[in-house]
Amino acid sequence: MSARPPSAEDEFVARLIRPLAGEGAFDLKDDVARIIPPRGHELVVTVDAIVVGVHAFPEDPPDLVSRKALRMNLSDIAAKGAKPLGFLLTLALPETTDQAWLLRFFEGLKADCESFACPLLGGDTTRTPGPLTISIALIGAARLGRMPTRLDARPGDFIGVTGTIGDAALGLIQRREPERAARWKLSTAEREHLASRYLLPQPRTAIAEIVARHARAAMDVSDGLVGDLERLCRASDLSARIDVEQVPLSAAAKTALAVDPALMENILGGGDDYEVLLTLDSNSWARFVAECQAKGMEATRIGETVAGEAGEVRVMRDGREFALRHSAFSHL
Amino acid sequence: MSARPPSAEDEFVARLIRPLAGEGAFDLKDDVARIIPPRGHELVVTVDAIVVGVHAFPEDPPDLVSRKALRMNLSDIAAKGAKPLGFLLTLALPETTDQAWLLRFFEGLKADCESFACPLLGGDTTRTPGPLTISIALIGAARLGRMPTRLDARPGDFIGVTGTIGDAALGLIQRREPERAARWKLSTAEREHLASRYLLPQPRTAIAEIVARHARAAMDVSDGLVGDLERLCRASDLSARIDVEQVPLSAAAKTALAVDPALMENILGGGDDYEVLLTLDSNSWARFVAECQAKGMEATRIGETVAGEAGEVRVMRDGREFALRHSAFSHL
Repeated sequence: MSARPPSAEDEFVARLIRPLAGEGAFDLKDDVARIIPPRGHELVVTVDAIVVGVHAFPEDPPDLVSRKALRMNLSDIAAKGAKPLGFLLTLALPETTDQAWLLRFFEGLKADCESFACPLLGGDTTRTPGPLTISIALIGAARLGRMPTRLDARPGDFIGVTGTIGDAALGLIQRREPERAARWKLSTAEREHLASRYLLPQPRTAIAEIVARHARAAMDVSDGLVGDLERLCRASDLSARIDVEQVPLSAAAKTALAVDPALMENILGGGDDYEVLLTLDSNSWARFVAECQAKGMEATRIGETVAGEAGEVRVMRDGREFALRHSAFSHL
Repeated sequence: MSARPPSAEDEFVARLIRPLAGEGAFDLKDDVARIIPPRGHELVVTVDAIVVGVHAFPEDPPDLVSRKALRMNLSDIAAKGAKPLGFLLTLALPETTDQAWLLRFFEGLKADCESFACPLLGGDTTRTPGPLTISIALIGAARLGRMPTRLDARPGDFIGVTGTIGDAALGLIQRREPERAARWKLSTAEREHLASRYLLPQPRTAIAEIVARHARAAMDVSDGLVGDLERLCRASDLSARIDVEQVPLSAAAKTALAVDPALMENILGGGDDYEVLLTLDSNSWARFVAECQAKGMEATRIGETVAGEAGEVRVMRDGREFALRHSAFSHL
């Protein structure tokens, strides 16, 4: 009896997944991978899942679905001032998934593995009678004892965010309520900006090292700015006050908001921003901003932490409190 | 505006999941966890998923489903001579999942977290329109440079397995084909043995350290003895020869096999054994067995590796080759 051909699963793994494998993954010929943290570093781990139909539209381009799944996790790690080392992939596939879809899914993932220097370390692929489900567990390295958590803010810290807030939430409205979005009268470039901010997060990996040096507390904004800040404040046992006028908006968001002022609710409470939210000593602010700018990234001060009830976030506009109905997305 | 109550997801996490959290998980108040490998160790990572309806019956007790999901991964790590440090949990829940089911799910998981000293490091919980899906990424520690992989076997190694083979495959037949199993005339204890071997893997964590010292190549048997050995041989670029008569069977399996000889196919090719399959230098065998026995674990020599076509496994019975139709389960 000669050697049997590899099983269908082995073939599948070999052909599509093996090109993504990194050092320590034994070309995925093993079912475990080894990781040796760089000297003077500790490991940071996080996990995030996408269920198609819940967190992504079934018609989304497959290469963007896989990249979003990876980037959601890269964003978590970057907001902790850490750099990615690799990831584990769980993929539950419906019988109806076609090979062309999977090819594009893995092509997209491979491009991001390379551009973020974040190889695949292992995975489990299975059939499901349900929707396509992707879970990625990401492993990163942070300087030993230097990782900012959500628990480390102190009263009087400046609160900052990178980039712009609300674009992804508006991009989602644009898809779900095209007639509403038509009233915004956006340019083609503005529409594409919002669409792409929803479809493809931009993890702030390039400034992770700057966050590590300056942040007291930090996290990424994934479930809405105000809701996520509430979580940070709850974990750090303090309150915060932010100014709506200071929240950084893209040109597209400003245009839409001018027509449709109710969008402020979505901008502050919507999710999928994938920006860094951090608190830092007021004395560090100017240097933090300058170092971010040197990497091409804007950072904006939106408020400050204050001693007070754990988790309270006061959102101010023109000196008065601005009431949000929903502060955070929740998938439960 | 006073502090908002935590979201439904935060409440859920707090009440059911937080008691499982380990050091470095910040009581799950953060969305990342930190891990510092013990001195002189490297990290080992693996991931395995359960889709209810594919890898578990919908009527399975919830505490056994969660424990099986964890133990599948603990088995991978133990077979690599590593000890668990903690895990990341992805849980996709159908709307219909009731609180009582979830309570039992987490009670079971907590019991295993404690008995295997393997705490929760983080997770992501989401809704799904599909079946309940669990993915666990496990992180363990192996002595630096001492982890046996699938790639390290050499020609002339002894091939050994722990415990007994085939019980879980027969336990599955017992559930799916009760009329066939009735003909086996098993005692109640034997029936329960097979049922429990299918429902609840017994990871060989207790002998992991012995495996680390003696094994050349090692893996756990999860997709069938012969198919998994083929994978090991393919990875190590050699062949193997095993003797059916030497494959260790439980009393229940022997009773069933005496009535229903066709079961040998299921015993050798069925999955869910969660025993350690390893190769070692013939000179190490006696010491390996003795050390395992001192921990209450039997190990049995079933054959040897030979130079030859990569991935070829010859299964011998009474000096003749025994042909298997299917060597491994595959979920794809």
